[in-house]
Amino acid sequence: MLNKDSTIRDEKPRLVIDMDEVIADTLHKFLVLYNRDYGIAMDIHQAPGKELHENLPENLNGQWKIYAHEKGFFKDIPPMPGAIKTVKQLQTRYNVYIVSAATEFRNSLEDKLDWLAHHFPFIPWTNIAFTGDKIVAADIMIDDRIKNLAHFSGRRLLFSSPHNLLITGYERVNNWQEVAELLL
Amino acid sequence: MLNKDSTIRDEKPRLVIDMDEVIADTLHKFLVLYNRDYGIAMDIHQAPGKELHENLPENLNGQWKIYAHEKGFFKDIPPMPGAIKTVKQLQTRYNVYIVSAATEFRNSLEDKLDWLAHHFPFIPWTNIAFTGDKIVAADIMIDDRIKNLAHFSGRRLLFSSPHNLLITGYERVNNWQEVAELLL
Repeated sequence: MLNKDSTIRDEKPRLVIDMDEVIADTLHKFLVLYNRDYGIAMDIHQAPGKELHENLPENLNGQWKIYAHEKGFFKDIPPMPGAIKTVKQLQTRYNVYIVSAATEFRNSLEDKLDWLAHHFPFIPWTNIAFTGDKIVAADIMIDDRIKNLAHFSGRRLLFSSPHNLLITGYERVNNWQEVAELLL
Repeated sequence: MLNKDSTIRDEKPRLVIDMDEVIADTLHKFLVLYNRDYGIAMDIHQAPGKELHENLPENLNGQWKIYAHEKGFFKDIPPMPGAIKTVKQLQTRYNVYIVSAATEFRNSLEDKLDWLAHHFPFIPWTNIAFTGDKIVAADIMIDDRIKNLAHFSGRRLLFSSPHNLLITGYERVNNWQEVAELLL
């Protein structure tokens, strides 16, 4: 785009990692807000295969999208346990890219960039992408959504989240400890 | 990410199009600011193969990056002649994605999304990506930077801009009329 051209690129295998529900505990942030605004219990039963909002009273079904559109929503989400340490280790063996489907949420873009700068300062801007569809060329993808994994031609790791627990046919990782064991 | 999963996707060939100096006349915006702030002529000679800032007095060499970091810089850039009409036509034959290397410039993200919503409202959020490296899986890429084209495995169209006029070895398009003739 605006920089002097360089065609040199890292030759390590490319590993593409999602943000929400993979390195960022976005479900926790939603629960904090549902709890604050509607008294929903933080430990509400999350039925396997259901989205968080499908476990809530019907009148709250659309509330998640209102939250997700708010400026600041994505700024103070806790990192997933072990994510920072493992992603840092993965960088020694892989060219790690953080790819988040974010362009639906205008207000999420700066928040997500700031969040990464704060928690993952070792990821350079060259390795961050905010997308719609994830039309990425890479060797491995870690994601909690099969809509992102389904069309990916490399190795596909489904990162467990309550909404995807009934999905079969994908190599599954349940946490960052398991990712470390598989890929390091 | 946050939506209900769907694995259905458009089966038309994927065409990835860059923003700056391809659909957006970013050079014009830089010249407006150099003219306003330093009296640089709007029709300054742009030597083939040189970046715009390399044609300026040496003390202004770093100024472009200061401009590019300013909030609003990317908001009021004129579209390239013929870009809107041709991209709209291309959508009938291709699954068009707008992919801009933007994550270096935090303040560009909302501006770029707003600019696309204003000038290219027919491009859905699913087809917009703000990246660092362009690690995209697609059939055709139109870009003015060979750093983006060099590692792309599909058909590569180098969109002419003063800085790339000395580059050979790429299929070249000089304007949107030529893109239309080639791809429609």
